[in-house]
Amino acid sequence: MESSLDVVGVGNAIVDVIATVDEGFIARHNLNKGGMTLIDADRATSLYASMPAGIEASGGSAANTMAGLASLGSNAAYLGKVRDDQLGEVFIRDLRATGVGFNVAPGTDGPPTARCLIQVTPDAERTMNTFLGISAMLSPDDIDESVVASAAITYCEGYLWDMDIAKEAIRGAMAVAADAGRRVSLTLSDSFCVDRHREEWLDLLANNVDLLFANEAEICALFETDNFDVAAAKIGEMVEISALTRSSAGSVVVANGEQIVVPAATVTQVVDATGAGDLYAAGFMHALANGADLTRCAELGGIAAGEIISHIGARPHVALTSLV
Amino acid sequence: MESSLDVVGVGNAIVDVIATVDEGFIARHNLNKGGMTLIDADRATSLYASMPAGIEASGGSAANTMAGLASLGSNAAYLGKVRDDQLGEVFIRDLRATGVGFNVAPGTDGPPTARCLIQVTPDAERTMNTFLGISAMLSPDDIDESVVASAAITYCEGYLWDMDIAKEAIRGAMAVAADAGRRVSLTLSDSFCVDRHREEWLDLLANNVDLLFANEAEICALFETDNFDVAAAKIGEMVEISALTRSSAGSVVVANGEQIVVPAATVTQVVDATGAGDLYAAGFMHALANGADLTRCAELGGIAAGEIISHIGARPHVALTSLV
Repeated sequence: MESSLDVVGVGNAIVDVIATVDEGFIARHNLNKGGMTLIDADRATSLYASMPAGIEASGGSAANTMAGLASLGSNAAYLGKVRDDQLGEVFIRDLRATGVGFNVAPGTDGPPTARCLIQVTPDAERTMNTFLGISAMLSPDDIDESVVASAAITYCEGYLWDMDIAKEAIRGAMAVAADAGRRVSLTLSDSFCVDRHREEWLDLLANNVDLLFANEAEICALFETDNFDVAAAKIGEMVEISALTRSSAGSVVVANGEQIVVPAATVTQVVDATGAGDLYAAGFMHALANGADLTRCAELGGIAAGEIISHIGARPHVALTSLV
Repeated sequence: MESSLDVVGVGNAIVDVIATVDEGFIARHNLNKGGMTLIDADRATSLYASMPAGIEASGGSAANTMAGLASLGSNAAYLGKVRDDQLGEVFIRDLRATGVGFNVAPGTDGPPTARCLIQVTPDAERTMNTFLGISAMLSPDDIDESVVASAAITYCEGYLWDMDIAKEAIRGAMAVAADAGRRVSLTLSDSFCVDRHREEWLDLLANNVDLLFANEAEICALFETDNFDVAAAKIGEMVEISALTRSSAGSVVVANGEQIVVPAATVTQVVDATGAGDLYAAGFMHALANGADLTRCAELGGIAAGEIISHIGARPHVALTSLV
């Protein structure tokens, strides 16, 4: 069957709260700089109260990727869980406004829509503290199998793996995609996330994933090595296509026993790294869906990431079609 | 009694939803470009759904002014009404994070926290569509008289005048301030607002206001003239100090039978005019509270306004103390 969707993303549906802070704030609040830390409701309340004023903007790693794909002209849909509250309304509005299909029914009870409290330091690094709320309760019932089966790529967020029910939802989606002869993609999301799930993920990568996204820290954590080349060689034996990002050093695509090194796009100002990996994946998959070679896929990933890091927030400020 | 607060602001407590649109959007949705239009819940829902993705940021005219004052180092407090919902929480957090005192109890029933749907066009003009929600239900009971009596200036938003109960709250606050020997300030807010309340406001200005803020369109609307000089002369006979803003032409201060013309601050890029008037008032009152002459008051107003229009949103992105 011809695929009617380019990509469907599965992930934590989150509204970002973004504020700029100095390094002292990170130290005083004992935050895990550059990483993503899960926080409970109490910690979310106290950290939120102590953050400087900022802005709210829809986020969520896979949702950012789908918004990027839509901005590039791809046909994208999203599966994730919000509550029927104000932040849930914000999330749904913003996602649909980008052209991404979204039809998961908001929860009518339980925890509120997820929030990620993001501190951006003067070096443009982002530190994320996520209160998962209802997003972690994405269940197999929320996965519309006809949507998954109709998408050329099913893109799953490693972040979701922390909750058993969401893990079950992802495994189900991956099985549907495989049965329909589609590509299955995974992003490792975070090196601490990798530490928590290493054994399961090694098995998943060897058997269920066709297209992997990871940054240098994540792929090194996966193989418990400090040597990127070692990690790149190992992943090449397990996954058909791996796109490995190295920040300002660009990215390396490992496929067919070869490595393709692609420099980063030129960026005039780096303001906020939030969403860089998410948008790299968007550019890469957009090019892949359009039959481009892997070099072009990585280039487009770099261009999309370059737009995102030039401003606060993880969703494009311009139509990405204008950049490619 | 020595004043312990520099300024207390009274206004509509609103969370802004800001998105950039093209001119076609304004025309298609029949919006009142450059103005502030009150919309009901149904219109808010449909307009929100049709807007492009954007960001949420705390707003409200007088609240923006208080945030600007705090950013300049003044001691400011705010009186306005939110619900005990997520957007109310956002509003309170952002205001307190700037250092503004806020202690009005959130409503526990009734309409939700107010939203202003703001479209920013390529010419940097903002078009505002406000769903007042619970903000319009600010009542005399919400006015802490000890706070008002302790502030050197009580600053009131013309926007609030549309609701009888809020009007009563403002009149009460003005009376408390006058009894305590403090200055009473009013901003006309919007020329359509002026059209709705002209007779009442002319009486209020003649008898109860010591410091007026208005832009050219508003002061001309007040006196039903196209001639700014005519309007400036007339207001000079009614109010002790009037600060009249003229966009890129700077501002004119009318006081003591004289007019002081002060050019606008140099701004390298104009992105979003939202909050320009609010921050002008902040800079002006900060200088006034510190005993500066009226020329310096207008200059500081221009500097604060210049920062706000250089980016999206109506709250400062840098500590304004760094600019003065």
